Amino acid sequence: MTNTASREGDLQKVFDHIAANEENFIARVMEYVRHPSISAQDIGIAEVAGLLVDHLTGLGFTAEAIETAGHPMVLGRRDESPGAPTILLYGHYDVQPPEPLEAWASPPFEPTIRDGRIYARGIGDNKGQHFAQLLAIESHLAVHGRLPCNVVVLLEGEEEIGSPHIAAFVEAHRDRLKADLVVTADGPIHPSGRPVLTYGVRGVVNFELHCRHAARDVHSGNFGGVVPNPLWTLVHLLGTMKNAAGEITIPGLHDRIVPPTDQERAIAARLPLDPESIKAELTLERLDAPAELGVAERLMFRPTLTINGFHGGYGGPGSKTVLPCEGVVKCDIRLVEAMMPEDVLDKVEAHVRRHAPEVTVVRQHGMLPSKTPVDSPFGAAIRQAVLAAQGLEPYEYPSLGGSLPDYVFTKILGVPAFVLPYANADEANHAPNENLRVDCFVNGIRTGAALLSALAAADHKSA
Amino acid sequence: MTNTASREGDLQKVFDHIAANEENFIARVMEYVRHPSISAQDIGIAEVAGLLVDHLTGLGFTAEAIETAGHPMVLGRRDESPGAPTILLYGHYDVQPPEPLEAWASPPFEPTIRDGRIYARGIGDNKGQHFAQLLAIESHLAVHGRLPCNVVVLLEGEEEIGSPHIAAFVEAHRDRLKADLVVTADGPIHPSGRPVLTYGVRGVVNFELHCRHAARDVHSGNFGGVVPNPLWTLVHLLGTMKNAAGEITIPGLHDRIVPPTDQERAIAARLPLDPESIKAELTLERLDAPAELGVAERLMFRPTLTINGFHGGYGGPGSKTVLPCEGVVKCDIRLVEAMMPEDVLDKVEAHVRRHAPEVTVVRQHGMLPSKTPVDSPFGAAIRQAVLAAQGLEPYEYPSLGGSLPDYVFTKILGVPAFVLPYANADEANHAPNENLRVDCFVNGIRTGAALLSALAAADHKSA
Repeated sequence: MTNTASREGDLQKVFDHIAANEENFIARVMEYVRHPSISAQDIGIAEVAGLLVDHLTGLGFTAEAIETAGHPMVLGRRDESPGAPTILLYGHYDVQPPEPLEAWASPPFEPTIRDGRIYARGIGDNKGQHFAQLLAIESHLAVHGRLPCNVVVLLEGEEEIGSPHIAAFVEAHRDRLKADLVVTADGPIHPSGRPVLTYGVRGVVNFELHCRHAARDVHSGNFGGVVPNPLWTLVHLLGTMKNAAGEITIPGLHDRIVPPTDQERAIAARLPLDPESIKAELTLERLDAPAELGVAERLMFRPTLTINGFHGGYGGPGSKTVLPCEGVVKCDIRLVEAMMPEDVLDKVEAHVRRHAPEVTVVRQHGMLPSKTPVDSPFGAAIRQAVLAAQGLEPYEYPSLGGSLPDYVFTKILGVPAFVLPYANADEANHAPNENLRVDCFVNGIRTGAALLSALAAADHKSA
Repeated sequence: MTNTASREGDLQKVFDHIAANEENFIARVMEYVRHPSISAQDIGIAEVAGLLVDHLTGLGFTAEAIETAGHPMVLGRRDESPGAPTILLYGHYDVQPPEPLEAWASPPFEPTIRDGRIYARGIGDNKGQHFAQLLAIESHLAVHGRLPCNVVVLLEGEEEIGSPHIAAFVEAHRDRLKADLVVTADGPIHPSGRPVLTYGVRGVVNFELHCRHAARDVHSGNFGGVVPNPLWTLVHLLGTMKNAAGEITIPGLHDRIVPPTDQERAIAARLPLDPESIKAELTLERLDAPAELGVAERLMFRPTLTINGFHGGYGGPGSKTVLPCEGVVKCDIRLVEAMMPEDVLDKVEAHVRRHAPEVTVVRQHGMLPSKTPVDSPFGAAIRQAVLAAQGLEPYEYPSLGGSLPDYVFTKILGVPAFVLPYANADEANHAPNENLRVDCFVNGIRTGAALLSALAAADHKSA
């Protein structure tokens, strides 16, 4: 028997174990999500962190809940063999607040199965997904008594409130987090049911523009033409920051951008990113300017400057002849490799100082972009694991349009980081009636199991 | 005795009558404003219109309350002599809602005198001012048994809700409104106590700009760069409508403008319009662009395009990475002679169609500007009456910055129209604790009386 055939046989036994224990695994994940762990409301955090430490300890991990300036990080490590590769599985045990409660068909913390889906807050985002990974580990141990590689598990308690302490935590615990790669099971698969593998994320930085001229609102007739209008000041300032052709015109903003590689473009070109279906879904007449860009280019390879909100003056019914005294604009800029939030904010501030010194820039939080090379050998191993577990090749995304704190792995730890979601596309995360399809959950356990086997094989090949 | 001396003697007798009846007149105006007549809430309108018809009838007027599509117009006419000039006194008997009631030191419909001021809703705007005119008529009749000229009184019941029916009413009743001039006693005198005479008003037109792209708000990461942002569309559109130098750049908007005459500029130059005191009062760093303009030019001789409100997207605390699906901008344009609201709206619409066809223009109401020649002989007569009654020359305003429906007199009836306010500058109209100084009220009765005499004299001179 060849090594490959032997490895395939070993994995098949794990799949068989998973199949035999499906009912038990479903019951256990439902028991897990029954415990609220709402970071924004500080509900149940310590209890669920404690459950996870016990769970990991039971799987032979050295585990503890490590205090931070916010909620604790659950960290577990099982070093199987010094020569084997080490995978860090990142997830988060905190959940979004469940409100509005009246919109739920069944209570958010009383998990219920309907039509092949488990409904509960956190079942998709993210407790059901990392629980699937833990069940994959358990299944390997049950069948073989050991894991194919070393495993670090890092479960955060503050992801839903913006991960304010993860960077400092990772900086401070580099040694305990030492790994060869990071895999996060979070977010949804493709609506078609095809799995998805993501190599990067855009970063983001938020800021506000505040403008006030007069001490109070005045009458637009009695003062119009005399008193400056902060809404006009903001409109004219914004017009200097991005033009109608869709180009961000803040000097220096594009300085650090590393253009996508040919390989990234080639992978992106294979994705089912159809402008017509996006337009149909959102009843759009057109995509954003510039008109000629492909969807991947728009979503992965360029920064954006979005006005999240613009508010000032009268907003009620009918008209009011007021000349308002203040206005506020909220913006975010999505960052691509290798833009830096603080550098971007510096450039925004310098631009505002030059064009509208009366406008105040309020700096908010930022998150760096992250990118893992799409030709990483671990990428090939993960694709192979997905194929073995689900019979489908994943769609490969060079980057997500959105932001996750993956930079703490790629930029602080310096290791490749992948996002490999298990949840159905209609998981309704952050919304009422959050759910996880039972088949997605089982696919997640199978994929997690295949992943551990594939990494050992990849390491064997590369050695 | 010369005619002039005789006329002065006749007027002095009227002044004496006013002085002798001051207490009675104050009691009666307080009784009048005790009756609510809130047009926006449809409270007390018919009752107060009825009181006015009785009042006018008692003064020998042919009077009635004439129904309109809204609240009735009170119209009275007393033709003293076919050869005498006819003055139309315009005012409004409706008042603003009194809310918030808890902010009043005494109840709004329980008139109270404190520190030389009568406090009550409507005492300044406008019931106390037109009641002073009626008392001036009564005083002439009491002393001389006749009036020096013919008088038409027109009291509207919808001024506080935008005078929606006055233009149609004036069109339909031209014959009954036939007069040589119109004088409106409304608004405040100068804060220094100097009376004010106004020859014109700016017009106004309101509109909204609505923009919607996607069917719903989307995530700024998952869709940023792909889905067009209506707030950017509106920002870029507005940038084409007025530039940062303060110039309105809508083609054709300035076409109909009649520049001010040298005489208007000369009169305006004498007004106490000090930029430094405006800046100090409103804690402004600067006046609106363009920087080099004088205050009168800004306020009287140029159109303005004011953003009254801009609202779209997230406006709560902190940040939200949303790409909003809709935004609304509310604007007004102040019009100078001889701009036309419908023409201006047509030009706005044409401009928006060319630059942002996805934006909808919602046309709202408009009011034409109005201008009376500053060299009208009636202007000289009014100034003389003010001097006779108050011992002070009025400040002459070629135009107000704000808008009143005076165009119905100058443009529909084709007669000169003047605004000659009696109320103190701190009358708190439209606000809690509205008040009228007792000395201003008495000055109003005296000025109204002098006005009737002066007109007869002016007519005599011009005849």
